[in-house]
Amino acid sequence: MNASIDPPAPPSEHIRREDDVLERIAAIVGRRTVPSGEVHIGDDAAVLAPFVGQALISTDVAVLGVHLDETLFPLEDLGFKAVAAAVSDLAAMGGRPRAAVVAVSSPPGIDLEELHRGIADAATITNCPIVGGDLTRSKDVAVAVTVMGECPDRGAVLRSGAKAGDEILVTGPLGRSAAGLRRRRAGAPLNDELVVAHCRPWPRIDEGIAARNAGAHAMMDLSDGLGIDLHRLADASRVGFELTHVPVAEGATLEEATSGGEDYELLIVTNDSARLRMIFIDRGLRAPVTIGTINRDVNVRLCNGEVFERRGWQHQF
Amino acid sequence: MNASIDPPAPPSEHIRREDDVLERIAAIVGRRTVPSGEVHIGDDAAVLAPFVGQALISTDVAVLGVHLDETLFPLEDLGFKAVAAAVSDLAAMGGRPRAAVVAVSSPPGIDLEELHRGIADAATITNCPIVGGDLTRSKDVAVAVTVMGECPDRGAVLRSGAKAGDEILVTGPLGRSAAGLRRRRAGAPLNDELVVAHCRPWPRIDEGIAARNAGAHAMMDLSDGLGIDLHRLADASRVGFELTHVPVAEGATLEEATSGGEDYELLIVTNDSARLRMIFIDRGLRAPVTIGTINRDVNVRLCNGEVFERRGWQHQF
Repeated sequence: MNASIDPPAPPSEHIRREDDVLERIAAIVGRRTVPSGEVHIGDDAAVLAPFVGQALISTDVAVLGVHLDETLFPLEDLGFKAVAAAVSDLAAMGGRPRAAVVAVSSPPGIDLEELHRGIADAATITNCPIVGGDLTRSKDVAVAVTVMGECPDRGAVLRSGAKAGDEILVTGPLGRSAAGLRRRRAGAPLNDELVVAHCRPWPRIDEGIAARNAGAHAMMDLSDGLGIDLHRLADASRVGFELTHVPVAEGATLEEATSGGEDYELLIVTNDSARLRMIFIDRGLRAPVTIGTINRDVNVRLCNGEVFERRGWQHQF
Repeated sequence: MNASIDPPAPPSEHIRREDDVLERIAAIVGRRTVPSGEVHIGDDAAVLAPFVGQALISTDVAVLGVHLDETLFPLEDLGFKAVAAAVSDLAAMGGRPRAAVVAVSSPPGIDLEELHRGIADAATITNCPIVGGDLTRSKDVAVAVTVMGECPDRGAVLRSGAKAGDEILVTGPLGRSAAGLRRRRAGAPLNDELVVAHCRPWPRIDEGIAARNAGAHAMMDLSDGLGIDLHRLADASRVGFELTHVPVAEGATLEEATSGGEDYELLIVTNDSARLRMIFIDRGLRAPVTIGTINRDVNVRLCNGEVFERRGWQHQF
């Protein structure tokens, strides 16, 4: 999309023009080998080989100063987090990533190549190639990532399938991201394990696929914290729940585990947790941990017998 | 994605929380009837029925104050233009729209419902349902739209297929959008025909599909203006061109037709323009107009014998 307000400026050696910047960025995020029959960056739209089964799509925005504190973290972490958060939404459905597009808006003077190196890193580790993008001027630095995935056999696992009596599990201990941010604020280095969990989150793609293959009833990723996300899953399934255990990560507090968000562990609901664990272990994945059960009564939302309040991060508008 | 910097605020009657706002927006942009087997807004990712043939994906950002002058146009036009521009990228490949996701970032106090009414309007006229979205706080009002489409039989038409001797055509006269902006600045009403062309552009979806079915060699949409987009197509195809005619829309200037941008007419290259025109007319579409021919020599870039300079809108970074 072009811009209708600013008049075209004359070419200048000091100003990098969009096509030049796009070419340099394409060299950073683009795949060296594009599959036969596909076209990635450079045309009006990317062309992908046919999808197998259901197609998934999700979008996520990360804004510098909102989703990442630029005084504490390098700019490339914003790109990494944006892609990881979007891919995590595919993991939450049991999907296999196929492609991502990134729309970056930024004021002049931002190191767009550094930002795109973080985007490229996350695309590589999640095996989700960046196939297109857009670049726009704005006051904020923002990265909007849209990911597409596929579910080749069994259909996607929704939030709405939890049934009374099902077990609730998570793929790992919680609160690592929030604890990492706290530690970074207190001076911990960027390679501190919990700090890394905050700025380089790892989407649970293999775990999501394993849970789908195991016939999980419902699933979602913990992006905003158990204290709000579990309520969302229960709302979508019209059920209640009783938590018996919140697995707090080493170095994190219970509050961080409950309301911190950005852990990107998966919340899985199943009526056959033995099978779920077996499939995880067969595939070399850490076995998920049971944290409670689903209750028929939508108003029963308990943790160790106490009311489990809805709490976690929400934007205000 | 949640936000790691601002602490959670206590619920307040005066502050609209994200889940509430999302629900109201979903009611505006969501389809009343979702096809069986699909899940649109409300889960981690949208689930779509299998695609037929190649899958297309493209992303586009519109920023208030950059892509739309808020002193001249209502906010809903920003949403409309963002969706229309993205869908036009599918049209440019000969694709059929399947779904769109919208990521909106905005400061507090913006009428997000108005913005989403424009998004919903464009989704309806382009038959491209909004199946998901994200909402984030930022200083700018920005709409990042990602669209997905499919090419059911013949493959997508790329920019890179133009061959020496081919004819170059456009689907309509140019400069309407730029002329409309000029007229609006001079006080023309919002329902002025050219003003409407600027703020409510119409993606040429049926024309793109017809051109693909007719076996067009190359195609793209004129989003940044003929003066830059034709060069991009020629670069991608490693060819030159000789223009013999630039069709200037009634009420527009030659400069607006060449460098104005945002017309979203399609630029089509074919070796059988008679067949192309026949298929367009058969389908009740306006016949495309020949504007020149493709030249073997990549350095020959002429308009009526003069050098045709690269000019049009580019962001600077």
